[in-house]
Amino acid sequence: MSETYFALGNEVTLFEQAFGQRVPVMLTGPTGCGKTRLVEHMGLLLGRPVVTISCHDDLTSSDLVGRFMVTGGDVVWTDGPLTRAVKDGAICYLDEVVEARHDSLAVLHSLTDHRRTLYLDRAGEVVSAPAEFMLVCSYNPAYRSSLKELKSSFRQRFATLSMSYLPREREAEVVVAETGVGLSTAQRLVGCAVAIRTADDAFHFEPPSTRVLVTAAQLITAGATELEAADACILAPLSTDGAISDGLREVAAACLAGADI
Amino acid sequence: MSETYFALGNEVTLFEQAFGQRVPVMLTGPTGCGKTRLVEHMGLLLGRPVVTISCHDDLTSSDLVGRFMVTGGDVVWTDGPLTRAVKDGAICYLDEVVEARHDSLAVLHSLTDHRRTLYLDRAGEVVSAPAEFMLVCSYNPAYRSSLKELKSSFRQRFATLSMSYLPREREAEVVVAETGVGLSTAQRLVGCAVAIRTADDAFHFEPPSTRVLVTAAQLITAGATELEAADACILAPLSTDGAISDGLREVAAACLAGADI
Amino acid sequence: MSETYFALGNEVTLFEQAFGQRVPVMLTGPTGCGKTRLVEHMGLLLGRPVVTISCHDDLTSSDLVGRFMVTGGDVVWTDGPLTRAVKDGAICYLDEVVEARHDSLAVLHSLTDHRRTLYLDRAGEVVSAPAEFMLVCSYNPAYRSSLKELKSSFRQRFATLSMSYLPREREAEVVVAETGVGLSTAQRLVGCAVAIRTADDAFHFEPPSTRVLVTAAQLITAGATELEAADACILAPLSTDGAISDGLREVAAACLAGADI
Amino acid sequence: MSETYFALGNEVTLFEQAFGQRVPVMLTGPTGCGKTRLVEHMGLLLGRPVVTISCHDDLTSSDLVGRFMVTGGDVVWTDGPLTRAVKDGAICYLDEVVEARHDSLAVLHSLTDHRRTLYLDRAGEVVSAPAEFMLVCSYNPAYRSSLKELKSSFRQRFATLSMSYLPREREAEVVVAETGVGLSTAQRLVGCAVAIRTADDAFHFEPPSTRVLVTAAQLITAGATELEAADACILAPLSTDGAISDGLREVAAACLAGADI
Amino acid sequence: MSETYFALGNEVTLFEQAFGQRVPVMLTGPTGCGKTRLVEHMGLLLGRPVVTISCHDDLTSSDLVGRFMVTGGDVVWTDGPLTRAVKDGAICYLDEVVEARHDSLAVLHSLTDHRRTLYLDRAGEVVSAPAEFMLVCSYNPAYRSSLKELKSSFRQRFATLSMSYLPREREAEVVVAETGVGLSTAQRLVGCAVAIRTADDAFHFEPPSTRVLVTAAQLITAGATELEAADACILAPLSTDGAISDGLREVAAACLAGADI
Amino acid sequence: MSETYFALGNEVTLFEQAFGQRVPVMLTGPTGCGKTRLVEHMGLLLGRPVVTISCHDDLTSSDLVGRFMVTGGDVVWTDGPLTRAVKDGAICYLDEVVEARHDSLAVLHSLTDHRRTLYLDRAGEVVSAPAEFMLVCSYNPAYRSSLKELKSSFRQRFATLSMSYLPREREAEVVVAETGVGLSTAQRLVGCAVAIRTADDAFHFEPPSTRVLVTAAQLITAGATELEAADACILAPLSTDGAISDGLREVAAACLAGADI
Repeated sequence: MSETYFALGNEVTLFEQAFGQRVPVMLTGPTGCGKTRLVEHMGLLLGRPVVTISCHDDLTSSDLVGRFMVTGGDVVWTDGPLTRAVKDGAICYLDEVVEARHDSLAVLHSLTDHRRTLYLDRAGEVVSAPAEFMLVCSYNPAYRSSLKELKSSFRQRFATLSMSYLPREREAEVVVAETGVGLSTAQRLVGCAVAIRTADDAFHFEPPSTRVLVTAAQLITAGATELEAADACILAPLSTDGAISDGLREVAAACLAGADI
Repeated sequence: MSETYFALGNEVTLFEQAFGQRVPVMLTGPTGCGKTRLVEHMGLLLGRPVVTISCHDDLTSSDLVGRFMVTGGDVVWTDGPLTRAVKDGAICYLDEVVEARHDSLAVLHSLTDHRRTLYLDRAGEVVSAPAEFMLVCSYNPAYRSSLKELKSSFRQRFATLSMSYLPREREAEVVVAETGVGLSTAQRLVGCAVAIRTADDAFHFEPPSTRVLVTAAQLITAGATELEAADACILAPLSTDGAISDGLREVAAACLAGADI
Repeated sequence: MSETYFALGNEVTLFEQAFGQRVPVMLTGPTGCGKTRLVEHMGLLLGRPVVTISCHDDLTSSDLVGRFMVTGGDVVWTDGPLTRAVKDGAICYLDEVVEARHDSLAVLHSLTDHRRTLYLDRAGEVVSAPAEFMLVCSYNPAYRSSLKELKSSFRQRFATLSMSYLPREREAEVVVAETGVGLSTAQRLVGCAVAIRTADDAFHFEPPSTRVLVTAAQLITAGATELEAADACILAPLSTDGAISDGLREVAAACLAGADI
Repeated sequence: MSETYFALGNEVTLFEQAFGQRVPVMLTGPTGCGKTRLVEHMGLLLGRPVVTISCHDDLTSSDLVGRFMVTGGDVVWTDGPLTRAVKDGAICYLDEVVEARHDSLAVLHSLTDHRRTLYLDRAGEVVSAPAEFMLVCSYNPAYRSSLKELKSSFRQRFATLSMSYLPREREAEVVVAETGVGLSTAQRLVGCAVAIRTADDAFHFEPPSTRVLVTAAQLITAGATELEAADACILAPLSTDGAISDGLREVAAACLAGADI
Repeated sequence: MSETYFALGNEVTLFEQAFGQRVPVMLTGPTGCGKTRLVEHMGLLLGRPVVTISCHDDLTSSDLVGRFMVTGGDVVWTDGPLTRAVKDGAICYLDEVVEARHDSLAVLHSLTDHRRTLYLDRAGEVVSAPAEFMLVCSYNPAYRSSLKELKSSFRQRFATLSMSYLPREREAEVVVAETGVGLSTAQRLVGCAVAIRTADDAFHFEPPSTRVLVTAAQLITAGATELEAADACILAPLSTDGAISDGLREVAAACLAGADI
Repeated sequence: MSETYFALGNEVTLFEQAFGQRVPVMLTGPTGCGKTRLVEHMGLLLGRPVVTISCHDDLTSSDLVGRFMVTGGDVVWTDGPLTRAVKDGAICYLDEVVEARHDSLAVLHSLTDHRRTLYLDRAGEVVSAPAEFMLVCSYNPAYRSSLKELKSSFRQRFATLSMSYLPREREAEVVVAETGVGLSTAQRLVGCAVAIRTADDAFHFEPPSTRVLVTAAQLITAGATELEAADACILAPLSTDGAISDGLREVAAACLAGADI
C-alpha cells in the first residue's frame, strides 16, 4: 500500500508551523478521512519518528508514562511510550484521545503548556521535552456523547486542524493508487460513498470512509463483483437494521448499475 | 461429529478473496447458523491453524497480547493468543466480539489497517503480521443492545459476510449427517424449528439454531421420543415464561404429530 | 440423611441419554425441588464423581479453570475445579449458573459444542474432555430478573430438564424417610406447604421447598411442636412483612390444627 | 457487665433443638434486642466456642474461608475464621449477614444443607463439619431495602427465631442488673423507650434498644441527670431532624419528669 | 496558636462521665464549631494520647486495623492506627465518620458494645481494649444526604454530644486569643458571621465557622483590610454562584463598615 | 517564553500575607487566566520551590503521600510529592483540586488547620510542616457540576483568591511579550476573545483563555494568517457543534477583518 498523502487544504502547512512553534496539534474529523495518514506523512516530512498510542477506557497514566517492574528480583522503572517519545524527540500521536480517561490525560497538562515538561511522580523524575518533541491528538466529533467529551480547557491547549473527506475526484485517485483497480470502478465506488454520506443526516450512522472504498476495491481486484464488494465493505458495516440496510442497498445498486471490472 | 461444511452462498469465495487481499473479515448472523464452522472450514481449506478466542466483558488487552509473568524469580514476557496467532500466521477468530470491552479492541486497530502491526506497548515490542495472518471476528446483530454495540469505525475495518440459517432441505441433511437420525425425523425437527423461527418476531427471543436440532436428534437416537427431545432441546431453552412455552409446545406438537423414530 | 432419590418423571432417563450422547444438561425448577439431589443420584448411577461449583457474582474464569500461583519462589499453574473435573471425566455441576458473570461462562463455550475442549489461554494449554465428562448447570427461572438472565445462545447449548415439586404423597414419604417423623405429621407439613405454594401467585415469594419441610420435621423429632417448627422453618423464611406473615400463619395453623407428635 | 441472659420466649429451647439436629439458625429482630447475647449464652450453655464475624460489603469469601499468604518466601494456605470454626466444631456467628455480598454467602451453601461440607476450591481441600459445628446468622428485617435482601432460597436453609424487645418489667431488671442504677430510674428510662417505640411507626426510625437504656443508666450512675443521659444516649441517636428531635424530647421529658437519682 | 478550649455547655463533663463508664462518644455539630478541639482538650485533661483518623470513601478496614506487609522477603503483620490506639489505651478519634464506608465501620461493632474487643480476622488475633481506651467519632448532620447516612444501629452505640457555635461574645474572645487582633475587629468579624449564619436557611450552604474568622483575623494582622480578609476567608468559600456572592458581600460590608484595624 | 507575571489586583499581596500567616490559599477563576503563572511567580518571589500536582479521578492518597515499594527484595517507604513538598518547605500546588477524589483530599485536613501536620498512617510516621511550607489549590468554578464539587468545609480551610482575565490592554501586552507579534495583531486577537467571552452566557462553553491567544499569535509569527490562526487556536476548541462554530466564525471575522501581520 502506497504512502502518498493527498493534502486536503492547509493542514500540512499549519502542522509545520505548529511544529516550529512547539504548539501541540489536535486533529478532528470523521473516521477514515486521513488523520493517521497525515501524522505519518508529517513524521516523514519533518524527519521525526512517530509513536502511536490508541486511546481507550483502560489506558492508565502508567501505560503512558511507565511503571516499576520486577526484574531479577529488583524493581526497575520502565518508561512508557509517551516518556520514550518525549526523550526521543518523537511525534507522539494519541489516536481517539476522547476515549481515554480524564486522569490519564492529566499527565499531558505540563507537556502542553509553556513548561513542556513531563512529571513522573512515581519515579520522582522530571523530563523536559526537546524542541523536536511534538504531541498530536485526534478525535472524531461525531462520536461526541454526553458522557464522554474532551474538556474545553483540554482542547484549548492545542491548535486544532479540522479535516474532512477528500474531494470526489481526489478520492477516486487514492482508491486507484492504493489498489490498482480501474478508474471507472473507483469512481463508481466513490459515487456510492458520496450518495450515502449525503443521506447520512437522516440515518445517523458513521458515513463510509475512504478506507472502506479501498477495501472494497481490493476485493474487486481479487475477483468479487462490485456489488458483492460494496455489500461486504461499504453497506454491511453501516447498520444492522434491516430496513436501513435495504434502503442503502438500493442507493448503492443505483451507483454501481452496469458495473464491470 | 463430521467436519463437512455446507456453504450457504458466496461466503467461502469472499472469505478466500479477503484472505488473499489481507482484509480482515467480520461474520454476522444468528446463533448457531454456522459461523464457527465456516472459520474452521476455511482454516482447513487455506491450510492455516485457527486460534479461537471467546470474547467477554473481562477479556483484557493483556489477555489478548500477553503479559509479564514471574518465572524463577524473574519477570518474563509471555505472548497471549493474539500475539501467538500473529507470529504463527494463523487465523485468529474473535467469537462474539461485541462482548469484548472497547479498550481490548483498541489493540486491533493497527492490525486491521494498512499497518498490519501489533504494538506490544508494555513489552516495548512491535510485531508485523506475516501475509498468512488473518483476523476474523463474529457477532450476532440480534443481541445488539443500546449499551453495547460495535462502533461503526470498528466495523468499517472489516469485510462483512452476513450469514443465516441453511435452507430447509440442507438443514435436514446436516442433522442426518451429524447424528444418523432418520431423514423424516430430521425433516420434522427442521419443520418445528422453521415454524418457531417464523413466529419469532412476535416473541422476541433468539430462534432455535441448527445446533439444537442436532442435539435433539442425538437424544432421539439414544431413545428419547421426538416430543421429549424437542421439549428438552428446542422449546425449553427458548423461554422461561409459562404462557409462551405453552404456545411453543403447541406449535412443536403440530410439527411432530404422528412422529415415529 | 438418606441418599434415596425419588424420581419425578423422565428426568433420570433423559439425563442418562444426554450423558450417553455427551450432551450437557441444564436443570431448571424452584429452590429445593431436588436439582442437587438428582445430580448426586446420577453421579452414583453413572459411576462418575461430582464436582459442585456454587456460582456467584465474583466467580472468575480463573476460579473455574485455574491460575498461576507462587510456590517455592516460582510460579506454577494450578488447575481449577472445572479443569480438574474435565481431566477426571467427572460430572461438573454449576449450581445457580445464572448468578455467574457472563465472562466466566465464556470458557464453557468450547466445552459445550462439538469441540468438547477447554482452552486454558493463560496457561497456553488445551484440554480435550474424555467421553465420561459431563457438564450440568442449574438455575431457578423464578429468580429471572431484567438485569441478570442467561443468554438464549447459552441456554441452547444444553438439553433442559424442567423439574418441579414432588406429588403430595411422595413428598410426605420423603419427609418421613429423611427424619423418622410420623406419617401424619409429615402429611400435615406437606399440606401446609401445598397451601402456601397455591397462594404463592398472590404473594410473590419463593414457595417453601421440600428441604424446609425436612428441617421442620427434624425440630419436631427433637421436641418442638408442629406450630413452633412450622413457624421457624416454613413461615419465617418466606417474608419479613408483618401483614403477609400473619396471613401465612393462619393458613399454617389451619393445616396443623389438632396436631400431635 | 453481667453475662446473665433473660429469655424472651422459646428461643433457648428451639436453639438447643436446632443444635441437636444440626440445623443452622437465623436470628431476626430489631437492633439491640439481644441477638448477640443469645448466641453468647448458647455458646456457654452448649459448651462450644463462638466465632463472631461482622458482615459487610467488602467481606470476601477469602476473608471467610482463608487465603494463600507468602511466608518465608513460600506460599502457605491460612484458614479464615469460618474454616477455623468448622474445624473446631465452634458456633460460627455471622452478624448482620444481609450486609454481606451474595458471592461471599455462596460458600455457605454446602455447609447449610445435608452435605455440611466446606469446599475450599482454591486450596483444593474439602472440610466436613463435625456434629458440634453450628452456623448462626442474624439480621434486622427493619433494614430490608430494595437493593439488599437475603434471597428466599438462602433464608430457607435456616430455622428462623424471631426475637423482639423484653417485656417492660424484665427490661428494667436488665438495666438495674447491668448498671446498678435505682429501679425507679430504670423504670422511667424503659417507660421513655416504650413511649418512643410506640410512636415509631409515625417516625420511621430504628427504635431505642435495651443497649441505649443501659448506656444512659451508666452515665446516670456517673453523675449525669436523667434528662442529660436520655438526651445523649436515647434521643440524639434517633434522628438529626430538628422538628422530630423536639417532639421526642417532649415525650422523654414527660416520662422522666420529677426524676431523681 | 493557643490550645485553650472554651466550653459551650456540659460537653466536658459528659465526656468525662462517658470516659469513666467506657462509653464511646459521638460528637455532632457544624463544621469548625470545635469538635476536634474538644477531643484534643479532653486528651490533655484525661492524660490520654489522641489518635486522629480522617474518614473518607476509600478508608478500608485494613487501613484501620492493619495489614500484612512484605519486609525482608517475609510477610509481617503491621498494626493500623485503630489497633495501635486500642493497644496504647489512647483516645481514637474518627473525624467525619459518616464519610467512611459501612464495611470499614463493621470492625468497630465489637469495640463499641460490652465486648470492647477488636477482632483482627486476617491476623487471627483478638485485642481487648484496656479501660483507658476510648472511641470518639464525629460528624456533621448538615451533610446528611440520602446516599450516605450513619445507620441508626451504629449511632445507638454512642453517647451523643450535640455541639454548636460559641455565643457571640465568647467567639470574639476566641478570635482575639488565637490571633491577637483587636477586640472591635473580632466583634465585627463575628457579627458578619452571625449575619450570614442567620441568613443560612435561605441559602443552603455550610455557614462560616469560627475557623474562618480566625483565618480572616490572621490576614488582617498581616496587613489586609477587613473587607479583603472577609472576602477571601468568609465569603468566597461559601458559594461560587455570582448572585449569592453579591448578596453576601452586601451583608458583610454592612457589618464591617467603617472598620479600622 | 517570558516569566513575567502581570498582576490583576491584590492577589500578590494577599498571597504574601497568607504565606506569612501560614494560611493555605485557594485560587479560583476561568481556565488559562493565570493561576499557574501566579503560583510560579510567588515561588520566585518568596524563594520557595513549587511542587505541582495535577489532580484527577485516579489520584490516590498514596500518590500524594507515598507508598511502600519493593527495592532489592525489601520493602522501602518512598515519599510522594506532597510529603516531599512538606519536608522541603516547598509550595505544594494542587491544580484543579476539584477533580481529585474526596478520599485523597482527606490527607490534607491535618495540614490545613492549626496542626499543620501530615499523618502517614501506613508508614506510621508524622511529619510537621516547617513554616515555609504552603499549600495552594486551584479550581475553576465554571466546571462545578452536581456530581463533583468541593465540600464547603474543605473550602473554608483556605483563603480564597478569585482571579479573572486581564484587562484588555494588559492582555494584549502579554500576547506581545510572549510571542513578539505586532501590537495591532495582538489587540485584534484580544478583541476577538473579548467578543466571544461576552457572548459566552448564550453558548455555555469555556471562553477562550489568554493561553489560546498566545498560541494563535505563535502560529501567526510562523506565517499563518490571523484567520487561520484564530480558527485553529481560538474557534475550533470552543465547540464541535456546526451551527455554533459558524456563529463564532462570523464574530471572529468581524474582529480580524482587514488584518495584516
